[in-house]
Amino acid sequence: MWLGKVVGTVVAPTKSESLIGSKLLVVQPLNLDGMNTISLQVAVDTVGAGKGETVLVCTGSSARHVTGNENSAVDAAIVGIVENIDLEGLSKAQYWVQKG
Amino acid sequence: MWLGKVVGTVVAPTKSESLIGSKLLVVQPLNLDGMNTISLQVAVDTVGAGKGETVLVCTGSSARHVTGNENSAVDAAIVGIVENIDLEGLSKAQYWVQKG
Amino acid sequence: MWLGKVVGTVVAPTKSESLIGSKLLVVQPLNLDGMNTISLQVAVDTVGAGKGETVLVCTGSSARHVTGNENSAVDAAIVGIVENIDLEGLSKAQYWVQKG
Amino acid sequence: MWLGKVVGTVVAPTKSESLIGSKLLVVQPLNLDGMNTISLQVAVDTVGAGKGETVLVCTGSSARHVTGNENSAVDAAIVGIVENIDLEGLSKAQYWVQKG
Amino acid sequence: MWLGKVVGTVVAPTKSESLIGSKLLVVQPLNLDGMNTISLQVAVDTVGAGKGETVLVCTGSSARHVTGNENSAVDAAIVGIVENIDLEGLSKAQYWVQKG
Repeated sequence: MWLGKVVGTVVAPTKSESLIGSKLLVVQPLNLDGMNTISLQVAVDTVGAGKGETVLVCTGSSARHVTGNENSAVDAAIVGIVENIDLEGLSKAQYWVQKG
Repeated sequence: MWLGKVVGTVVAPTKSESLIGSKLLVVQPLNLDGMNTISLQVAVDTVGAGKGETVLVCTGSSARHVTGNENSAVDAAIVGIVENIDLEGLSKAQYWVQKG
Repeated sequence: MWLGKVVGTVVAPTKSESLIGSKLLVVQPLNLDGMNTISLQVAVDTVGAGKGETVLVCTGSSARHVTGNENSAVDAAIVGIVENIDLEGLSKAQYWVQKG
Repeated sequence: MWLGKVVGTVVAPTKSESLIGSKLLVVQPLNLDGMNTISLQVAVDTVGAGKGETVLVCTGSSARHVTGNENSAVDAAIVGIVENIDLEGLSKAQYWVQKG
Repeated sequence: MWLGKVVGTVVAPTKSESLIGSKLLVVQPLNLDGMNTISLQVAVDTVGAGKGETVLVCTGSSARHVTGNENSAVDAAIVGIVENIDLEGLSKAQYWVQKG
């Protein structure tokens, strides 16, 4: 799994049937030094995450299983909302989990 | 899933039987800063996407499930046409979803 | 799926039983600007591809399904021979599909 | 599988049901020259690993199988604690497996 | 699949039950220009490979199938020992398959 920050939402009226009703969030992956990457990932929310929150993202076939639909068009799912990351000597980590 | 722009089509008369009749589109992945990458991906269209549109792409075994054929030679499928990306403070995002 | 050019063959007399009789080709992935990458991938040919041809490569569990053997030691398969790539404004694309 | 060093833990009270009770560790991947990367990965511990230890990480659907729950929200699992890496001519390797 | 050179072994007495008895080898991926990368991968040997040999590595769920245990903690397996790579115009390729 990887950690990221929710930075936006995707509006896609035309989509696979299995995605109807899903909340599609844009998540920015985080690096160990606290710097954000420019990579862009979209994940289905399964835990009630919102903008600015640091989240745990699960990918691949495991993400599909989380949705409860074995045939869903999902390869990434938000599976946790992070309250704290305990990283020795990496002070920027605390910044990640602040909202906004 | 990841976001990209449809930039072309692939013509491949000789192909796996499971791909016959599929529309193979070339999709250019997008980064968070709005800059296009030079990475080249081919995805099967499942939602009627066309050139210049910003799309949502699903990869891996989940893409295969979307096609409705469990044994198809597909590892990437276009599963949504993006109308809007709501990214706070990332103004280039609006540019992405303009056609052309 | 991704596009690449067949640049060589692999000779490996000692290999998994499921690979015996398979043609193992070295494929060089292509980028959107027409520049070749230095990444090195090996794919099982399933469509009669040869050196110098531009091909469509399918990866992961989908590639295994293409071989017709659910337990084969395959994670990448050539599933199409590309005759043309229609990329607006990307003139180098025509070069890719020339042989040699 | 890949090798990494356990550098922290993740606290996420709100998470997928299948992750409740799991120990979520932050693992920093290692390169062949002994330099740490800045990539950030989270893996479920299945072997009793702790901070500072060098571990073997398994990813994808194989990681899900290791947890014993076919539907768990897991795409990476720590499956070994490394005591030694025998790399000829790569002296920094010994450093990796020292604690701390 | 990808090509790499076996550069070491991993000693991990504490590991998942499904890995007991497996030979865990460190494999250095190769690029098309013959330059070694610094990426570090661990693969289970299934063909009797040894240090200094150039090998073919299969990843993902396909690697798990090769081990004969559907639930093993394996996401990468050595599935071939390479004797020769025939790459036109890429003279360094011959160097790869020399031992040492």
